[in-house]
Amino acid sequence: MTVIANRNEGQRPALHFTPKIGFMNDPNGLVYSKGVWHLYYQLNDRNLVAGHPEWGHATSTDLLTWKWHEKAIKAPSDHESIFSGCCVVDCNNTSGEFDESTGSDDRIVAIYTLHTQGHQTQDIAFSSDGGYIFTPYKHNPVLDIGWADFRDPKVLWHALSNQWVMVVAKCHQFKVGFYGSPDLVHWHHLSDFEGAGVRGYQYEMPNLVEVPFDDDNQRKKWVLFLSIGPGAPLGGSFTQYYVGEFDGTTFTSDDNYLRTADLGKDWYAAQTWFNSPDGKAYGIGWASNWQYCNRVPAERYRSAMSLPRKFTVREVPLNANTKSLSLISRPIDLSIARLPSNDAAMVYTNGSAKISPSIDVIYQRHMQGSTGAFEFKLNIKSVTSPARVTVDIANPSGRSVQLNFVVDDQGMFISMDRGRIRTGSSWDHPLFDDKVCMWVPSTQSVYDVHVIIDVYVCELFAIDGAYAFTNTFFLQDGVASTLTVSQEVTDTEVFDVYELCPLASA
Amino acid sequence: MTVIANRNEGQRPALHFTPKIGFMNDPNGLVYSKGVWHLYYQLNDRNLVAGHPEWGHATSTDLLTWKWHEKAIKAPSDHESIFSGCCVVDCNNTSGEFDESTGSDDRIVAIYTLHTQGHQTQDIAFSSDGGYIFTPYKHNPVLDIGWADFRDPKVLWHALSNQWVMVVAKCHQFKVGFYGSPDLVHWHHLSDFEGAGVRGYQYEMPNLVEVPFDDDNQRKKWVLFLSIGPGAPLGGSFTQYYVGEFDGTTFTSDDNYLRTADLGKDWYAAQTWFNSPDGKAYGIGWASNWQYCNRVPAERYRSAMSLPRKFTVREVPLNANTKSLSLISRPIDLSIARLPSNDAAMVYTNGSAKISPSIDVIYQRHMQGSTGAFEFKLNIKSVTSPARVTVDIANPSGRSVQLNFVVDDQGMFISMDRGRIRTGSSWDHPLFDDKVCMWVPSTQSVYDVHVIIDVYVCELFAIDGAYAFTNTFFLQDGVASTLTVSQEVTDTEVFDVYELCPLASA
Repeated sequence: MTVIANRNEGQRPALHFTPKIGFMNDPNGLVYSKGVWHLYYQLNDRNLVAGHPEWGHATSTDLLTWKWHEKAIKAPSDHESIFSGCCVVDCNNTSGEFDESTGSDDRIVAIYTLHTQGHQTQDIAFSSDGGYIFTPYKHNPVLDIGWADFRDPKVLWHALSNQWVMVVAKCHQFKVGFYGSPDLVHWHHLSDFEGAGVRGYQYEMPNLVEVPFDDDNQRKKWVLFLSIGPGAPLGGSFTQYYVGEFDGTTFTSDDNYLRTADLGKDWYAAQTWFNSPDGKAYGIGWASNWQYCNRVPAERYRSAMSLPRKFTVREVPLNANTKSLSLISRPIDLSIARLPSNDAAMVYTNGSAKISPSIDVIYQRHMQGSTGAFEFKLNIKSVTSPARVTVDIANPSGRSVQLNFVVDDQGMFISMDRGRIRTGSSWDHPLFDDKVCMWVPSTQSVYDVHVIIDVYVCELFAIDGAYAFTNTFFLQDGVASTLTVSQEVTDTEVFDVYELCPLASA
Repeated sequence: MTVIANRNEGQRPALHFTPKIGFMNDPNGLVYSKGVWHLYYQLNDRNLVAGHPEWGHATSTDLLTWKWHEKAIKAPSDHESIFSGCCVVDCNNTSGEFDESTGSDDRIVAIYTLHTQGHQTQDIAFSSDGGYIFTPYKHNPVLDIGWADFRDPKVLWHALSNQWVMVVAKCHQFKVGFYGSPDLVHWHHLSDFEGAGVRGYQYEMPNLVEVPFDDDNQRKKWVLFLSIGPGAPLGGSFTQYYVGEFDGTTFTSDDNYLRTADLGKDWYAAQTWFNSPDGKAYGIGWASNWQYCNRVPAERYRSAMSLPRKFTVREVPLNANTKSLSLISRPIDLSIARLPSNDAAMVYTNGSAKISPSIDVIYQRHMQGSTGAFEFKLNIKSVTSPARVTVDIANPSGRSVQLNFVVDDQGMFISMDRGRIRTGSSWDHPLFDDKVCMWVPSTQSVYDVHVIIDVYVCELFAIDGAYAFTNTFFLQDGVASTLTVSQEVTDTEVFDVYELCPLASA
């Protein structure tokens, strides 16, 4: 395996989680307890490509500053792997496996897939120290239906039916299995959900979570995330979701339409945190794609997580006649990571300004090395159709990626050009799309866009979180230090432009 | 509007239909009668971008050789347009509008949408000369529900219920309206089909057709094509379809999964021919995408149709456990267009050969100008994983597009690199994807691939028609004349390599 150096290797993303070494994929075991957000993840620390995963572990108190820990769950042998799964806080000791002396918040149970060639079972492991050291259950597996592709359990406590509920992928049958348990050890089958929308090659990483309405926290819907790949219509792998009801036995989707959680190429395997402190829905995705994840530039580690997101649901207009109850995704507040504006030469910042018809450099970092991390917002209004706004994100060598916003009567296309003509990358692969594109309908008078650039990850949120678009890119010769906005026949406002900095480790 | 010259303008596709001048989009009015295949199409002959469409007209006796005719249906005024629709043969004079002296095969009725600002109605027009001259019905419209977005009627004769049946898009409500009529003039509502799968911005161009099974012509399923855009997950616009039953009133889809008729960027608005001579399902798509159709290089005309395709249905494995009853798409037989192999210097042809591990030029046109049109087949078998086959399609200036086939344990990615690093194109647009990609699961020991290149259209069919992938590309400085295949760790056979030539006009 040839490993191609990423010239930005020395500079990790400021705020996006990356593993210390090795290949990372799915987020696992997301659990909050005792003031700490735990993020476990699929980690192959022997190589920079997928293979033989175990559970890496990191923690944070603010979801922006991450601390690496020792591997939390290790494979018992070379021919076994610890595949994806989840964690819960068994505060009431339903499992009966905890000592009374263990604090209720320290009682963490991991539920995961033990993978061997041709066989996948659901196993559990116990931690009595709040999620750092796990001991596999002595009578594993806790759920075995004899299948080769049966994986990625996510467990929640369903208060109304007074039971633990597991969703788990029956991957190649295109079903999500629902199982119930009083104790996390004994599981019985509740139902199978047969999805609508995309099948592709297989289902992976289901995640069931109750999500509040955007404008009414008391009102909630059940959202079932489901990851699909390869064979997704966006190319490679992607995350779809269903909005519906769950009665303790059966999940019923409100309809059979395809809903896509993120319209970029790089947001897969999304999971949400168990036991969030305010009871709301927080989640994270893996910022890569099975289409090219093993091939992108990397040196000591490969791939990043997205920023954590807060989820709600809201009726989003698809056109003038039809609305869809949609997942709303907003990145967590980055204000603690904003650099004071006087650290850099900015044409303007911390307010809002309309850009002139000619090119405007809105941010240029002169003084010292840029962090490569920026946040900015745009309000785009077309004057005539078609109209266009371009944002160049460039490094001192003139290498760049470009965002384009093309508005016509029906809506706005958003594209990112991450091809090597702009980035100067010496790396290329036929499966790495040079341009990626999404679309937003014209059901609002102004298109609001929030962009976060972080060394090699770009996350974009439009229409107050109704559309998310996450894509990686690989700039040659250093990270971005300049943001330039230009326009053709739009009335565009740029505001809240900030450089972002890595925070001191917690 | 800036029109950018396509340096290949002088050389039209050999076999793909293009309009004489102006902007072309949807195929319309597909009808066969008296040995002639009629192809009408949305045509704006005032400009090279979409706007004010009327019905262009072409005919063929072999579906490969097309003859341009005068516009068949003209807009009555500048503020009215003739939007998409269909034709039928009213051989029994159900409409009562034909003279008895008019031959039964000459009685053609066009059913189309009359578009005015804020209002779309279904209108009809009669031709007594087999489809060349049409006269609008004096009591138009025949169907008006007072809506702004209600269009693209497709009519078939449903023998079992002894009526004409129209499918028509209730675009922004995401419904397909079904209407019945004894006479093409009086229409009553039968049902509305609420689709599953993708919604995007709107539904367009429904097409209901009975399609035989691949291995049993007596057995048939109803297939409902539905075009969606913008907002499709493939980017821009695309054609999805449903497989199900139609009882004369209601269409019932067998399931709620997304099925995509073509996984490329450039196959939209698919329609099938009424009254095909053998009763089978033949259709055609528009080889472009609303994401960039108004912007691609063009000089006197813009866009092409795909090759006509013959459709069947077959159970296609999605993985080792699950099959899907899928549309099978095969291009019509091109053998009459194949140049004799001795016209060109070919390393081998007209047989099959395994390519060596080193690069093999399989076709190189020396003698005279290439047609830019080629057909070839590949059987790809990986030796180890990952494996790769690359096909370079180059012109004498070394400009090229590249097809890549990347095989791993789960399946095969197919990508086309049509970016300007290879094509040398001076034209670029943020909404024109430089690389396009699709995926085929590894449920067969050998991946069979059939590729047709035709000046600027590439159509690819894999797994005996189970996957179609149509994409346009724009080579600078002349059409392709060389095909080169190289490989890494595959056992690949290349066969049936032919240069294709335009046929004399019928």
